[in-house]
Amino acid sequence: MADNVSRVDGTRVLADLHALRAIGTYKSGVHKPTFSEPHLRSLEWLVQRLPEAGLAGDIDGIGNVLGASTKPGPKLLAGSHLESQNHAGWLDGPLGVVYALEAARVINPDPKIDGAVEVAAWCDEEGHFGHFLGSRSYVGAVAEADIDSARDRNDGRTMREALASAGLADRPRVQAERGRHIGYLEAHIEQGETLESSGLKIGIVTSIVGIWQYRITFTGEQNHAGTTRMAIRRDAGLALARFCVAIDDRFPASCGPRTVWTTGRITLEPGAPSIIPGAAEMLFQIRDDDPAVIARLEDLLRAMAAEVDKQGRCSVAVERIRTGAPARMDASFQQAIEAASAAFAGGKSLRMPSGAGHDAQILATIMPAGMLFVPSIGGISHHWTENTADADIVTGAEVFVDACRRLLVR
Amino acid sequence: MADNVSRVDGTRVLADLHALRAIGTYKSGVHKPTFSEPHLRSLEWLVQRLPEAGLAGDIDGIGNVLGASTKPGPKLLAGSHLESQNHAGWLDGPLGVVYALEAARVINPDPKIDGAVEVAAWCDEEGHFGHFLGSRSYVGAVAEADIDSARDRNDGRTMREALASAGLADRPRVQAERGRHIGYLEAHIEQGETLESSGLKIGIVTSIVGIWQYRITFTGEQNHAGTTRMAIRRDAGLALARFCVAIDDRFPASCGPRTVWTTGRITLEPGAPSIIPGAAEMLFQIRDDDPAVIARLEDLLRAMAAEVDKQGRCSVAVERIRTGAPARMDASFQQAIEAASAAFAGGKSLRMPSGAGHDAQILATIMPAGMLFVPSIGGISHHWTENTADADIVTGAEVFVDACRRLLVR
Repeated sequence: MADNVSRVDGTRVLADLHALRAIGTYKSGVHKPTFSEPHLRSLEWLVQRLPEAGLAGDIDGIGNVLGASTKPGPKLLAGSHLESQNHAGWLDGPLGVVYALEAARVINPDPKIDGAVEVAAWCDEEGHFGHFLGSRSYVGAVAEADIDSARDRNDGRTMREALASAGLADRPRVQAERGRHIGYLEAHIEQGETLESSGLKIGIVTSIVGIWQYRITFTGEQNHAGTTRMAIRRDAGLALARFCVAIDDRFPASCGPRTVWTTGRITLEPGAPSIIPGAAEMLFQIRDDDPAVIARLEDLLRAMAAEVDKQGRCSVAVERIRTGAPARMDASFQQAIEAASAAFAGGKSLRMPSGAGHDAQILATIMPAGMLFVPSIGGISHHWTENTADADIVTGAEVFVDACRRLLVR
Repeated sequence: MADNVSRVDGTRVLADLHALRAIGTYKSGVHKPTFSEPHLRSLEWLVQRLPEAGLAGDIDGIGNVLGASTKPGPKLLAGSHLESQNHAGWLDGPLGVVYALEAARVINPDPKIDGAVEVAAWCDEEGHFGHFLGSRSYVGAVAEADIDSARDRNDGRTMREALASAGLADRPRVQAERGRHIGYLEAHIEQGETLESSGLKIGIVTSIVGIWQYRITFTGEQNHAGTTRMAIRRDAGLALARFCVAIDDRFPASCGPRTVWTTGRITLEPGAPSIIPGAAEMLFQIRDDDPAVIARLEDLLRAMAAEVDKQGRCSVAVERIRTGAPARMDASFQQAIEAASAAFAGGKSLRMPSGAGHDAQILATIMPAGMLFVPSIGGISHHWTENTADADIVTGAEVFVDACRRLLVR
């Protein structure tokens, strides 16, 4: 470790994170929906920091910030995102951006290191307008028509309107220059409690799970809640509730060790207290890093729906509306993170899949990619109470910067 | 029956119902929310019909139409409502108004009958702005402050705005003149399938059930749907689904023969596909004509909630938000309907409670009240397919008019 001093400035990292937290503060977290004023100010903040790291860049035509280096040698791309979920935490996104910035500040001016870290903030990772529109734009997977049709799920504003009012409508979208980068590294809070409950400091991500999403629709018969006897009802809401419970009872026998499933939204039609619901819909999601497990669970889901149909009281339709293949993280990136953890985190690391989606899964489609996690207190995220201990934030920064160095000099 | 000819004009009754169906037509039903243009036109239509029945009246300051007679002798009040649920049927409401109008047309000009039928259309029986605001205003149970705070559940428009734009803001509200009426009679479609499935033509309502309504709120922990292991989740939506199923499993052992219960609306917070719901709410309703049965079921509901609380994963709060005592129908009104059914419906009648609420329950708080039902095809109501056979509509009119005559001449 003698020649391997990180020179990470932990105070500077924390100060940067607090500077971003001060933009769009909500309780102890932030509220920065994509293209909101606090989000745009956060992007400007990053643009103004880039020169300190020997980088130049601006906000592009889809709201990405990309800081490019003119230093010769290999380039490593690193970053995350700066918008937040609604009324959410201060670290989900900014942590990865500030780590990347710190790595660039440490590595880029260092003449002993051949190569540079380039910093990215990907727009809309949190999906206010779509799925990973910023990173997907960068890898060339977003057409103009996708932008035409994108709308803010909060208020229905079109993405075109949002880009225009942010003054970004006429800017080009920066796209990946093939061969420019040796790969992409992203840090993130774990958003789970595995690291914390095991006393570990660094998660080495092996893969990002796939997300399969379903719209499950129940059709019964709408009728008057006062005059229709219980015996003859065809209550779509009750059929849905029974289905939710059946999933919870039956999935455990068929799932993998880390499978998760969630019913995030339920809608009854017409939704009035005096009317028996004639239709009901649930949004249901399964996540696993093994497509075979997902396939088995989808078969079970469809078999369960067929059983309900057969009982004849309500009919059920299962529609898959999102299919996300798992993304494998590059083996050499995992090794670099593990070696850096040994050097700066006492080896308190664990290889683990990511249950959440991240921009790294998009970058992984065009270059080697890796991710590291730091612990989340109580496993909480997507909530304003989300937090990580200051010491863990600094340790994470040291491991991250060292992993970047190892990837550039290997 | 020789001196008991109804002189009901069945063709005229059907023509009137079709005239009202032609205002605000939706498929084979109507869409006439309270104070919508089609609702106001329907009220105007009724005002223009009143003189044919020897009545005079107008739309009052809450949207009621009241047709008064100057004929000496006893007065019987009769009516129903002209607005509809959204995208609903053509008979729910108009049937009772047109029967009342027909009774007035037959009885009021008849010098042999001492007394008159007065016709009412009560505003907002369907509860777009509140609960029975029209009939409650008439009996003196609506304060100006109640109107100030009433809003359209469809679009949030205040009742004051709706009254102003209908030109009703400055009109007085007509209130009941104590002692003027011998009672109130209302006809309605059954909205259930008891009459149809038994081959009967007339339901003689014994009581209108009470409606107890609850807001049941589940509190768990909002978290990320990808990173939070199943074992440690506190999913409020799943707790709600299990509670719905438990109600359905356990209520039958404690309920009465005609008790009904319904979960009409479910809301998960925040309602996003990738977030485990931290809170969930259901609107739940119990109806019975026996308060003791309701009390027993409410005890069970609270005991079940305490069991969920005790398991410790999610907490449950049960809040009663509406308490409606059952309304008994007057015995002499039931006898009059039964005698009229014997004369005009071959005695094919049944005494039965009403599972739905009606304006008659409000009028019953200040005068004797009665209701009769005609069959509903397939038991369907609050849906545009709602219907009753023409022959049953005409038979119902004959029984209704004869019951009015019997009540006036007794």
